[in-house]
Amino acid sequence: MTQGVLEQTSAEAAGETSTSTKYVYFFGGGQADGNGKMKDVLGGKGAGLAEMTNAGLPVPPGFTIQTEACREYMRGKLNSRIDKEMREALKRLEEMQGQKLGAGDNPLLVSVRSGAKFSMPGMMDTILNLGLNDKAVEALAKRSQNPRFAYDSYRRLIQMFGDVVLDIPKKKFEHIFDGVKHREKVKFDYELTPEALKDIIAEYKKLVKKETGKDFPQNPMEQLVAARDAVFRSWNNDRAKTYRRINHIDDWLGTAVNVQAMVFGNLGENSGTGVGFTRNPATGEHTFFGEYLMNAQGEDVVSGVRTPMPISELEKAMPQVYDHLKTITWKMEKHYRDMQDFEFTIQDGKLYMLQTRNGKRTGLAAVRVAIDMVREGLITQEEAIFRVEPNQLYDFLVPRLVEKGEKIEVLATGLPASPGAAVGQIVFTAEDAVKHHANKSYKSIILVRGETTPEDIAGMEVADGILTSRGGMTSHAAVVTRGMGKCCVAGAGDCTVDEAKRELRVKGKTFKQGDWISLDGTTGRVIAGQLKTLPAQPDDPELVKFMSWVDPVRRLRVRANADIPRDAKQARAFGAEGIGLCRTEHMFFAEDRIEHMRAMILADNEKDRRAALKKLLPMQRADFVGLFKAMESLPVTIRLLDPPLHEFLPKREDLLVQIATLEATKPKSPKLKELRSLLKRVEELHEMNPMLGLRGCRLGITFPEITEMQVRAILEAAVAVKAKGGNPHVEIMIPLIGSIEEMRNQTAIVRRIADEVFAQKGAKVDYMVGTMIELPRAALTADQIAEEAEFFSFGTNDLTQTTFGISRDDINNFLPAYLKYGIFKHDPFATLDQAGVGQLVGSATARGRNTRPTLKVGICGEHGGDPESVKFCHKIGLNYVSCSPFRLLTARLAAAQAALQEKQTGPDLHTGAK
Amino acid sequence: MTQGVLEQTSAEAAGETSTSTKYVYFFGGGQADGNGKMKDVLGGKGAGLAEMTNAGLPVPPGFTIQTEACREYMRGKLNSRIDKEMREALKRLEEMQGQKLGAGDNPLLVSVRSGAKFSMPGMMDTILNLGLNDKAVEALAKRSQNPRFAYDSYRRLIQMFGDVVLDIPKKKFEHIFDGVKHREKVKFDYELTPEALKDIIAEYKKLVKKETGKDFPQNPMEQLVAARDAVFRSWNNDRAKTYRRINHIDDWLGTAVNVQAMVFGNLGENSGTGVGFTRNPATGEHTFFGEYLMNAQGEDVVSGVRTPMPISELEKAMPQVYDHLKTITWKMEKHYRDMQDFEFTIQDGKLYMLQTRNGKRTGLAAVRVAIDMVREGLITQEEAIFRVEPNQLYDFLVPRLVEKGEKIEVLATGLPASPGAAVGQIVFTAEDAVKHHANKSYKSIILVRGETTPEDIAGMEVADGILTSRGGMTSHAAVVTRGMGKCCVAGAGDCTVDEAKRELRVKGKTFKQGDWISLDGTTGRVIAGQLKTLPAQPDDPELVKFMSWVDPVRRLRVRANADIPRDAKQARAFGAEGIGLCRTEHMFFAEDRIEHMRAMILADNEKDRRAALKKLLPMQRADFVGLFKAMESLPVTIRLLDPPLHEFLPKREDLLVQIATLEATKPKSPKLKELRSLLKRVEELHEMNPMLGLRGCRLGITFPEITEMQVRAILEAAVAVKAKGGNPHVEIMIPLIGSIEEMRNQTAIVRRIADEVFAQKGAKVDYMVGTMIELPRAALTADQIAEEAEFFSFGTNDLTQTTFGISRDDINNFLPAYLKYGIFKHDPFATLDQAGVGQLVGSATARGRNTRPTLKVGICGEHGGDPESVKFCHKIGLNYVSCSPFRLLTARLAAAQAALQEKQTGPDLHTGAK
Repeated sequence: MTQGVLEQTSAEAAGETSTSTKYVYFFGGGQADGNGKMKDVLGGKGAGLAEMTNAGLPVPPGFTIQTEACREYMRGKLNSRIDKEMREALKRLEEMQGQKLGAGDNPLLVSVRSGAKFSMPGMMDTILNLGLNDKAVEALAKRSQNPRFAYDSYRRLIQMFGDVVLDIPKKKFEHIFDGVKHREKVKFDYELTPEALKDIIAEYKKLVKKETGKDFPQNPMEQLVAARDAVFRSWNNDRAKTYRRINHIDDWLGTAVNVQAMVFGNLGENSGTGVGFTRNPATGEHTFFGEYLMNAQGEDVVSGVRTPMPISELEKAMPQVYDHLKTITWKMEKHYRDMQDFEFTIQDGKLYMLQTRNGKRTGLAAVRVAIDMVREGLITQEEAIFRVEPNQLYDFLVPRLVEKGEKIEVLATGLPASPGAAVGQIVFTAEDAVKHHANKSYKSIILVRGETTPEDIAGMEVADGILTSRGGMTSHAAVVTRGMGKCCVAGAGDCTVDEAKRELRVKGKTFKQGDWISLDGTTGRVIAGQLKTLPAQPDDPELVKFMSWVDPVRRLRVRANADIPRDAKQARAFGAEGIGLCRTEHMFFAEDRIEHMRAMILADNEKDRRAALKKLLPMQRADFVGLFKAMESLPVTIRLLDPPLHEFLPKREDLLVQIATLEATKPKSPKLKELRSLLKRVEELHEMNPMLGLRGCRLGITFPEITEMQVRAILEAAVAVKAKGGNPHVEIMIPLIGSIEEMRNQTAIVRRIADEVFAQKGAKVDYMVGTMIELPRAALTADQIAEEAEFFSFGTNDLTQTTFGISRDDINNFLPAYLKYGIFKHDPFATLDQAGVGQLVGSATARGRNTRPTLKVGICGEHGGDPESVKFCHKIGLNYVSCSPFRLLTARLAAAQAALQEKQTGPDLHTGAK
Repeated sequence: MTQGVLEQTSAEAAGETSTSTKYVYFFGGGQADGNGKMKDVLGGKGAGLAEMTNAGLPVPPGFTIQTEACREYMRGKLNSRIDKEMREALKRLEEMQGQKLGAGDNPLLVSVRSGAKFSMPGMMDTILNLGLNDKAVEALAKRSQNPRFAYDSYRRLIQMFGDVVLDIPKKKFEHIFDGVKHREKVKFDYELTPEALKDIIAEYKKLVKKETGKDFPQNPMEQLVAARDAVFRSWNNDRAKTYRRINHIDDWLGTAVNVQAMVFGNLGENSGTGVGFTRNPATGEHTFFGEYLMNAQGEDVVSGVRTPMPISELEKAMPQVYDHLKTITWKMEKHYRDMQDFEFTIQDGKLYMLQTRNGKRTGLAAVRVAIDMVREGLITQEEAIFRVEPNQLYDFLVPRLVEKGEKIEVLATGLPASPGAAVGQIVFTAEDAVKHHANKSYKSIILVRGETTPEDIAGMEVADGILTSRGGMTSHAAVVTRGMGKCCVAGAGDCTVDEAKRELRVKGKTFKQGDWISLDGTTGRVIAGQLKTLPAQPDDPELVKFMSWVDPVRRLRVRANADIPRDAKQARAFGAEGIGLCRTEHMFFAEDRIEHMRAMILADNEKDRRAALKKLLPMQRADFVGLFKAMESLPVTIRLLDPPLHEFLPKREDLLVQIATLEATKPKSPKLKELRSLLKRVEELHEMNPMLGLRGCRLGITFPEITEMQVRAILEAAVAVKAKGGNPHVEIMIPLIGSIEEMRNQTAIVRRIADEVFAQKGAKVDYMVGTMIELPRAALTADQIAEEAEFFSFGTNDLTQTTFGISRDDINNFLPAYLKYGIFKHDPFATLDQAGVGQLVGSATARGRNTRPTLKVGICGEHGGDPESVKFCHKIGLNYVSCSPFRLLTARLAAAQAALQEKQTGPDLHTGAK
């Protein structure tokens, strides 16, 4: 079939003469036809091979068939010149290597690999050991004095070729392979003898004949052409297409094909293979770092059958090779001006570089490397700012698991809801957490729940980490723990949490209360047993230095979401320039308050409601005094009561079950009447869609006395703090505004109570009244709302919910399908949707400022701590972002990067509005 | 205090000389200073009095103090010329009447009334009988020979003056009044003797002295000035301000003050009073129509103590007066070119017209009058189209209660959720409704529920009317019954519906299953017992004629929302030009289908799901065949499955209670296991906010096999109908699209299945694929979505929910407060919010057509049948509106009115986008 395609397309192409296009680019012997900038033409890998070759690196030579050939192949019009250029390049390669493809005593073998402009790891096909046939395998066996290796290479070629080129189902090869292993009674592949491998090869060849009607091609050139076309075809396999859709890569780009001489590290004791970094990727320390194995292939290093040696040993074993490697990699570091991650092979004492690229590193290492490289004069301070991913700074703020040398049993992988590590004894209720924390019976605690609710707050406070089996990245557990900087793995669906039996069942194992587990919130892993941890390092001097470069650069101010004085202090330590969101309702869940809150809600008349509110007033006032003191003269935005009232009451379904049980067993119990009356109020407050119900300013409009109490508490606190020499900056925020009329209603109450308080206390404080823009209608009528509102703060969690019509509590039912099909590129609750939600944010900002040019505008949703979203906020000209304290470093860095990018490319005139 | 204000402002005004402004406009004796067009200056009432006077009507003379005076009063700068002009006008009035204000044997009494440019009924203050004092009251008693009337008039003046001018709490007067009534042992006010009334007057005067420190003013001029200023002040009372905010009336307009001679119908047997219409307001018949009472005041007609006489009797009693009245009112009908509603008083044999205005009428009468007036040459055909309110046409389509001569006991008043009348025996479950309907044990049925759910559909089908105690204008009961054209009273909060006991408790009474009640869905009344009804008259020849004028005028097409062939036929009878929304899920609730639907939902793998879907396929196909046949070659838009799946399953809370009960009583019951397994799936599907969850296209993306089955059923049906000579126009609508990626995903499935069906059947039909725009994000990215979508249909119910962030199921918790404070002018689910939701509709239409100029755009939410919303749809250039069949007449008329308005004023360039 492959041959057929080739003939057909060549014939067609004969009709056209394209004389200018060069199809095949050679590299090797210190120079390459292409260079590193030609990613469009050569793909990323091909350009990299050219660049390395030109830089004098000992790269195994070869050639790249450029992307235009792939496009022609897709159009069914492959130019006949391609075959010709390919033959010429192969000849040059053979001469350079002193070998012939699949022929002679020392046969040339090549790899055939895809390589598109943008990396698509693992999406397309690769064929190794190409050139082997019945004769060449004997030569290879002889030359390597390793027949097992030679026959294994050949059987791998037939298998890969059969799968990729000939479309024979993989499992048919595996069936043969497993049959022979079973017959030979061996467990590991490497235990197979050369004779057994020969049997496999014979069976493989029969399979090929049976499935295709033809023999496995013995002609190496025929192998090569067929493999090339198969790589072209793999551009359009399903997983590649899906990957491109998800990553917005154009379908017409096509892939290049790289044909490169194979080198082997297992040709004897003078050969070897290894990997390394120019600096320590965990700590950033400036030391040569890596591992290698003699007489081995890459997979031996990975499989763990043999233990690799530290690279320093190579200096003793092969000092020349070691020096060469060190010189080369340092050179590459200078060339690329970044820490390098490299792979090398030594074949018969000769060093080959297989790959070198900028190395991945931890946040700690990223900061250290950036600072060192500025000191070394390798990069500028501005460049250093881009060398750290904003999210990496989180590493400084949370503990990490110590994994080195430990046996890690991963029980399940959930969502990395809140990074860091936690190791503790499990409990299943908030009450148990509080109890075991109080009596110190457990050293550290992990709270395991199906999902958490606001009622679990006390338990979450004392736990070291949280594990839930349900819920997404913006579930209650995720949001609250990120705010606390506490490790959380959420939505670990493989875990069955039986709260009644106090059992966690996973992977056939049962964990009971008090058993130890370890959580890695950075990767989402749930690990059996008690690992060790390394503590957080927020005061690391390198970090402090790095942030001193970052902060002067940014234009965007950074505030924190903090509800209590302790969090406010934490936030200031992490660089908060104000509080952007204080959620007053969180104050009501405390044990001494929930009772009054419930009394307020259960009141069926204004008088009783006011009586309950009167008891809450001094508590709220005390909270605000603490907050204003902690923040000194920085602005503090306080949001009035927002959530639906039933959140403060027992759950409806729990009451229904309790009542049904009592009715069936103790129908005369006096408790029944009480429960029924409670249920009645709960039913009254029950809503089909609480997110869209009686909450936000709708509460303050329906029950003005709630707004009155809260405003009184805020302003009495501010007056009191000012009286003691403080300088509070109060911003009162009305939640869930949808129209100017709502804003007028609530603002009037705020101003009236303010006048009352100031008259009663004989003292004034400055304050502003503004609103959260968290409904599309508020954004659409922002010009009107700005008539009353002195500031806007975009509540992008809710705005995302309503703009998309997606509840963040319920998104997990379909998010997996959406990510799989590429309908969502990200969870829109984690990264701001710029096209839709961002459009509203941008246009509302413009409309608001049109009405009130001095309007202060910020954002206080979860997105305030997401780097992409922070950059968007910079672009559209917001005044500040507000995020949980543990995201502050990230936000500061993202804001600085955005400002520098703007400086480099000019301001983006996009405002989100069209 | 009043005096003080007057002195102060007069003094201030002395500094200014404004010479041009005329402040006081006289009317009387056949001519007036002003005229009917001067509403800005004279207010609505003042302009009307001038107009009537100029038209030669015998209006009691008087004068109007213009609105500028009120504005000056508000600014605290009342021009001193006002007092001067007022005195002159009063003098002229006294001369014309041959009386003196509050003096002599025949004292002049006047009324002092507010009257702003726009009617604000009951919002501002009025004072009657002004001019009475201790002397004048004696003269009046003598002249009228009715001392009771005279003293009662005086005590009323003191009470009104005390309340309005002197700010003395009303209840203090009432306390005195009730005390005397108690002492005298009388039940009704009119039983008080003149002596008792004198006692009351004495006590009232003491109260005034005590409260103000001054005597009740005996000087009539002082009374007049104070009353005038009080009316000015009443412009700014709270209820007037609220009314203006709700109705968007400018605060600075101010009110005029009308001072008019009082006339009395109770001065003897030669006096009388009455009301009437120039045509019959119930039927439109062209006959003089009215009632009167001799020797009576207006309140006697209203109070029901005496039974009024038909106006024809006046012809015998006072033929001259009758002729005069008839001549005058016909003249006014010609003058105003509309049916008149008038009030008159006969004082001493002389006829006075107190008011004449365009009369309110039923829908039946409105059509009849419009057609007659065209025939009479009074108005043009175009004018006739504006003489009927679109909503009034509903009267032709529903039965009405016969109330005349019946004793009406109103039990409760709920929301007029679906107009018409229903009289029947009550049942409390859908099952009972079905049962009693099937065995004909009940003649007609009213289904009474707390709230209805989709599971009640079968019961709603057989019921004549629905009553619910919870839920709003867009609750399930309301929406479904409006679609069925069936009477519904929703959210009658005074009713306690005890479904368990099968009891309706209201007003201390208990109604049991089988008891008769009557519902008036047009007013929301729930009435005890079995009233008679008049049937609907959709084929009324006058209506048919009227619609034949309406239809050629409109540009907007009108479609119906219809799910089954029966509704489709109904819709065509009411003029539908297509189906704009067929909700396929409604088909799944039928008894023979819900079982397969549940099997589909409960399946935990694709194979079982497909098996269940296979059983649903032929049923759906048969539905669509019926629909396509019914609609012949008109377009039919079919929406794919939209609601959350749990709607098809038993309720979670019911299962919890059942399980808890069984666990407590029969823990070994095998039923328990089954229920637990059902609950497990229900829990999996349970959502916090189902409106924002797994529904709409999210279902079709997560379970593509559902989309596949539905598309197959639709297209197989279309092919089958076409094969039999039909001409189906199929539009497949993907619900709840938020992004182009979702649209691409679902469109690909539709096209693939279409190709399969066409290949299998060897025949093709034309079809379009489009989407509902019902999420803000869809509207914001409509330019992208139009790349795939061939039509848009705005689902304004959902779009309103998400734009406002308000669940229509939960709005009733705060809607009352919102309407009360004027935050909402209308329920946004009933009338489209033009500023927010309308802005999105407008901008999405423009964006969509920018991408695809041929894009067909319609609307299919509840708003499609609301006249204001229909007019908006016309303005922004939609192609069609779609509404429930029973709203079609309304939509057709509203569309015609919009087109005519545009013709008169030119097209509105407003597109909703800014």
